[in-house]
This record gives sequence, C-alpha cells and structure tokens, in this order.
Amino acid sequence: MTTLNETHDTALTSWVTTANDDSTGFPIQNLPFAVFRKQGTQGAFRPGVAIGDRIVDLAALAKLNVFEGLAAQALNTCTGDSLNALMALGRDHWRALRLALSRALRTGSPLQAQIEPLLSAQADAEYTTPARIGDYTDFYISLHHATTIGKQFRPDNPLLPNYKWVPIGYHGRASSLGVNQAFPRPVGQTRPTAEGEAPQFGPCQRLDYELELGIFVGTGNAQGDRIALDQADEHVFGLCILNDWSARDIQAWEYQPLGPFLAKNFASTISPWIVTLEALEPFRTAFTRGAGEPQPLPYLSSDTNRARGAYDVRMEVLITTQASRAARHAPAHLSASNFSEAGYWTVAQMIAHHTVNGCNLQPGDLLGSGTLSGPQPSEAGSLLELSNGGKAPIALPWGEQRTFLEDGDQIIIRAECQKAGYPRIGFGESVGTVMPAR
Amino acid sequence: MTTLNETHDTALTSWVTTANDDSTGFPIQNLPFAVFRKQGTQGAFRPGVAIGDRIVDLAALAKLNVFEGLAAQALNTCTGDSLNALMALGRDHWRALRLALSRALRTGSPLQAQIEPLLSAQADAEYTTPARIGDYTDFYISLHHATTIGKQFRPDNPLLPNYKWVPIGYHGRASSLGVNQAFPRPVGQTRPTAEGEAPQFGPCQRLDYELELGIFVGTGNAQGDRIALDQADEHVFGLCILNDWSARDIQAWEYQPLGPFLAKNFASTISPWIVTLEALEPFRTAFTRGAGEPQPLPYLSSDTNRARGAYDVRMEVLITTQASRAARHAPAHLSASNFSEAGYWTVAQMIAHHTVNGCNLQPGDLLGSGTLSGPQPSEAGSLLELSNGGKAPIALPWGEQRTFLEDGDQIIIRAECQKAGYPRIGFGESVGTVMPAR
Repeated sequence: MTTLNETHDTALTSWVTTANDDSTGFPIQNLPFAVFRKQGTQGAFRPGVAIGDRIVDLAALAKLNVFEGLAAQALNTCTGDSLNALMALGRDHWRALRLALSRALRTGSPLQAQIEPLLSAQADAEYTTPARIGDYTDFYISLHHATTIGKQFRPDNPLLPNYKWVPIGYHGRASSLGVNQAFPRPVGQTRPTAEGEAPQFGPCQRLDYELELGIFVGTGNAQGDRIALDQADEHVFGLCILNDWSARDIQAWEYQPLGPFLAKNFASTISPWIVTLEALEPFRTAFTRGAGEPQPLPYLSSDTNRARGAYDVRMEVLITTQASRAARHAPAHLSASNFSEAGYWTVAQMIAHHTVNGCNLQPGDLLGSGTLSGPQPSEAGSLLELSNGGKAPIALPWGEQRTFLEDGDQIIIRAECQKAGYPRIGFGESVGTVMPAR
Repeated sequence: MTTLNETHDTALTSWVTTANDDSTGFPIQNLPFAVFRKQGTQGAFRPGVAIGDRIVDLAALAKLNVFEGLAAQALNTCTGDSLNALMALGRDHWRALRLALSRALRTGSPLQAQIEPLLSAQADAEYTTPARIGDYTDFYISLHHATTIGKQFRPDNPLLPNYKWVPIGYHGRASSLGVNQAFPRPVGQTRPTAEGEAPQFGPCQRLDYELELGIFVGTGNAQGDRIALDQADEHVFGLCILNDWSARDIQAWEYQPLGPFLAKNFASTISPWIVTLEALEPFRTAFTRGAGEPQPLPYLSSDTNRARGAYDVRMEVLITTQASRAARHAPAHLSASNFSEAGYWTVAQMIAHHTVNGCNLQPGDLLGSGTLSGPQPSEAGSLLELSNGGKAPIALPWGEQRTFLEDGDQIIIRAECQKAGYPRIGFGESVGTVMPAR
C-alpha cells in the first residue's frame, strides 16, 4: 500500500517560487508529467514535469547526470517523445524519480543552479499526447449518468440489470485522442424522420461533451494473466482530464447492437498533464456502497478498495463561444462534479475487471471513467443531461443559450484536489474547440 | 482503378519451383507479406514475402541493393519488425515493389543466384503480428450472421432498423491480436440464474470462434478528413484471415448498452500472411443488392463499388481436438463460406463509413469484416449459429461432438481464391488453440 512520504510534506516549498502558492495547482507536492516543446518551433517533443508556472525539461535533465539509482534509470527513459518507457518501468522507479525531483526542486537544493537553465514557461509551451496510446477503453462508472441517459435512450428500462454488477466498458478509438483539439463537427447518418424512410445525413445536430477522467496504465499484464484488485494501483501511472465528445444524434441511430462507434471516435481531448497516482495519495477516500446496493463479486471486492479506493477530485466544465471570446467574457460555468461521488466503481475495479478474462493492458493504455455526473442535476457531465435531452436550453451569462454545441464553441474542463492544510493539486485543463463541418 | 498488369500474367512461373503448382497457394501471382524469423531462435523478426514453400527475407534483400526507384524505396522500409513503414508509403510504392519482386522471382531472372541464398523454408519459420496495429475495428457485414445471432439475442427483433443503412462496426482490442495464439479460456461474469440474484462467475461455458477476414489499412487519413468510397481501395494494403474468438455467455450478460467488451478482447487470431489488394484484383466481382433491398446513401454508393466492390474469397473452418490430434485424425470441416456472398457491405464501404465523421485511420490499423456467415446453414461462421445456440450438437468424424469449444480444441481457418485458368491464391491459415482457464 502506498502511503504518504517525504514528497507529500506540506512544509516543502520550491525554489521555483510560483509553485509556492495555490495559483498554478503545480506545487512541489504535485509534479505532473507531460510531453511538450516550445510553441511554434518544429523541435522534438520531450517529457517535462510542471513546477509552478515552469516546466522542467526531463531530456535535458537526464543529460546532467545528477540523479542516481532507480531515479537515474527512470529519468534516462525520458528522452523520447512519449512517456511510455517511463510508464513501463513500474512503481518503484516512478517513486524514485518523484523523490529525486522533489529534492532537486525544493528550496535550498544544491542542484538549483544546474537545473534553473532547463526550465521554460508553460505559457510558451505546446503539448502533444503524453503517451503513445495503444488501446483506449471507456467505462461508464457513474450510476447517475447511466440512469439519466438510460431514461432518454430507453425510457422504460433506464438502468440495465447488469449495471450494478459489471463495470460496463467498451473499446474506444485511440488514433483520434489528442490534446488541445480543434476538430470539425462530425457528419453522419441519423434516424429517419419516419419508419421505413431512408436515414438523414449531414452535420451532427446534437454535439456534446462528456466530463471524464482518464487513467493512464503504467505497467501492463501478460495476455492470459489478470491483475488482482489489490494490485491494480501499482499498474496505474496517473490520471488526466478527458473530454469524450459525443454526437448524440449519430449515436442514437448507430449504437444498437454493438455500441457507440462514429458518435465517439472523431475526437477525444485529454489534458496535457498526467497527475501521478502518488501525487493523489493524500486525496484517497473511502469507497462505500449504500445499504441497499449489492456488494460486488469477490474479484471486485476488498477491504482496501472500500477503505481508500476512491479519489476526491473536483472537476468543472466551462464554455466559451465565438461571441463570448470576441467580447472577452470570462468562460461560463456549465457544471461541476466530483470523481469520488460520481463513480459507482473505482479505478482499481476497472483494472481488475478489464483483465479478469486475460485481456492484456500495456504501458500507455488509457481508460476513461465515463461521464462523471454527480447526484445533483447541476453536477451533470454532459449537455444531454443538463439540457434534458435538448428540451431545456441553458442560458449563458452573455445572453446566448445552448442545448447542444455550436460551431466555435470551446469546452474547457478543469480538475483539482483540495483539502484544508494541503497545497492545491491541479490537473491543468483540457481544451477543445468545435469547428464547422467540412 | 487498379487493373490487371504484368504481375497477374497466368503464364508466369518462378525459379522457386514449389510456387509453380497450386499446392502452396503462394504462386508468383500472389506474393503475400508477413513478419517472420527462424523458429526457435531469438533473432529479430523481419518482413518476408512468400513464394511457394519459401520465404524471401526482405531485410536481407534490401541489403543487396538490386531494386531501383519506388521499388527500392519500398524495400528499404522492410528492415524492421513490422510492415507499418511499407504500409504508410502508399499504392504506387506497393505496386512497384510487387513488380520488382515478380520480376526477380520469375523463371529466368538474372537475380536468381543472388536471391536464392536469402530464402528460407516456411516450415522452419515462426511469425509475429505483421504490423503494429494501432486500432482494431470490427464490423458486422454479414446480413445472415446478423439475422441468425439477432434471433438468439433478440427473438422478437433480430435485425435492427439501422442494419441495412449503417455498416455497423465497433472498436475492438488491438493489444490481444496475434498470430498462432494459444490462450487460456476466459473467465468472467455471466447471467444470474434468476432475476435479482448475483451473476455467476467462472470460466466461459460458451466459447466460440468467428470466421472473419481482416483488412489492413495502408495509408490513413488526417483527422477531420474523410476517405471517399471510390478512393477507399487505395488506402487498403491487403487482407488476412481473422478469428474473432467470442465468449457468448459473457457477451450475453455484459453487452448492453455499450457493446461487447470482455467477451471479445481476450484474444483475436489473424493469419501471418497478408494478401495484397493487388494480388486479389483478378477476384474482384460485382456487388449488387437485391431488388427489395434499399440502395445505400450516396457516400456509400458508386458505380465502381457495384461493378467490382466484392472479392471472391473462399473460406473454410476446421477443428482438431486433443483426442483427434492424439489419434492423428485429419482436421474436421466445420463450415465454409465466401466473402462476396456473405457481405452486405464492401471493404470500400467500411472504409468510407469509418472515416465519414473525420475519424483518422492509420497505417497498420486492422478492420475485421465481422462473422462471414453465408446464406446457407452450412455456411455459418460460428458455433453459435452451427449448433443453434448450443441446442444442436455437431458430430465430429472421430466420435466426439461439440456445441461450443472445449479445452484443447484448435480452430484452423483457411482462405483462398480460385477460378478456372488462374493460379490458386492462398491466404495460409489462422491457427488458435484453447487452453484451460487459469
């Protein structure tokens, strides 16, 4: 079991002084990973770690040869354009690297003079997908989302009998995952206007976002083996923000009997930064089911999972539009939710379920949580829910209203962990923009 | 439009004399690609081309520096452990390489003495997945399969209203695809014995194969762009055999509402050899819909697709069991089918549909056809169909019977193209074996 260690000490400060208040969400207790380069250059992308408003260039740091042992081994994998090699090393290496980075970046570190020249401003950076994502699986862990959506697709049968037993998941598209995406509105088939007619065809009319968290697999499992529930955490590198864009009208027509396909695979936007599971340790919380809920089958059930299987991560969805940006309005709040309250299943349960049949996970694979709608209507993680299937337009503060997304709309999702007496642990944000259909 | 050329000349023979009758299925008119190494060695896997019962080592051939122009450029990508770089080059390069190989391997070639030492026996080879498969999509193009299966899962509603309009597809698992797989029987949840009870858990009791063809994407498309129907063929590198193993009892419990997941992602077995689309040119046939069938929407409809959208590929499924192998019985025939008769949609329609929303395909991506059941009961592509959902056991010639697969069972799928006056174009075989649950 991972527990708190020196890197979580709230007294730690960094010689990068912007890390020492809660403004950036990247204090020395966080140290999230991304793959970046200077904006507008054609230079190679390379791994970096955030500290305050700066990024430590890990490829350059590796050349200094100032770390030792497992930390040096881990750092030496950070020279390419993805984090896959680091992810494949395993938890002992991740911990050693985090500890070495924490010591190197803290106030008074003798390495300050050597490392300072390797820092660059996040404001000048551009990012790419932090890992080569071999496979992307999307789960469906919010009971509230499943129930609300179920009512719209199957009014008489909203929650299917398997929901409270099976962490429902399906395979998504890895190729169209990215950071800071601007994508054309998808085109496709939608329901015929009358039974027996040809379907309609054209740009999606019910384009939506989905508020999710992404789970990056670190070490995988051999095909045929399974990962036990209480070992699952060791296999997870960290979490990011995920916006799983959805074309609701395309989905409604295509999804039976084999699930969503073109309704989802045109784009999925993650945040550039991966917050490691170790950085999230202070925000683990109990995961319990209500008295009336069935207890999971043994392979999905353990004392550890109940005691600390959930993560207290707050999320917020914001929108800007072409008009609001022109008028320089601040982004408008659409909803807020919390990972620990939204999930009917934990990260560990998703991993244990995914591999129970021998399916092999690989370093860099991404699991999506599914839309993280909370119990309250204001905590809904999609417009489909917030607008009651398009029937209740949402008023935006600058006078526009929305049921679904219009061209030029930009969705910003933020996430963070906060509790009294601990520095704010930020995830940065995922940003995606809807362009006109081609 | 690709048409027949010098490489399809039926008069051509090879100085590799085993290529000059129909016994291997690898005549000089075929020239399929795989990635191989000598069995039992720890050497690097490398690309090869089959000719008769031999393999040409393309990495070694590249070193000879005997090709020119596009053919040389194409060959020079064949030095790693996958065909992705060759696939990414595009059709002009693939054609040039095929022409150069055809000339080099034909009777009387001045290169014979230089190339002969680079040949090795297929009998001594082992294979790996011929490409790094970024994404795997499985379609569902057999109307016959969809109707028969639909009756078992939804007796009152076998064929959903979208079927004849949408080439139904869903994302599968890339990591568990392989060649010559031996995998443990998957374990998982299945339906409760009574409503309100906990689900059952244990080794799958209804393990099945699915007879499919796989389509390897060559050149992809940029995210946001689409591939037009009549350009789709240019993006396809070639076809292989695919066995999409399925755990029917796990599938029945988990698949609603988001589609199959653990029922499919434990293993999927392809043949080592990819037969190029150019080798299949002589076997293109008309693709027509019956008078009562709706015509597809314009993005899925063209004269070219109707005139030559289908491929006349014959397929056969065979089984051996632990008992039959011990007694040295020949594999038993389970069923036979034909790609052109089974498919309600063509390869080009699958590509055009997959990308109509801007989803990006990448070199090495694999599309599965879905189970290729033909119109006759004997042409069913799965045990679920052949045994009528497990109710009608199939008698095997050595005295055993099967409804679903038992431990030790091995499924062999073969495919080939045959017509009078043309050499037999073989696909080799896909071989997979069920091991006991772990």
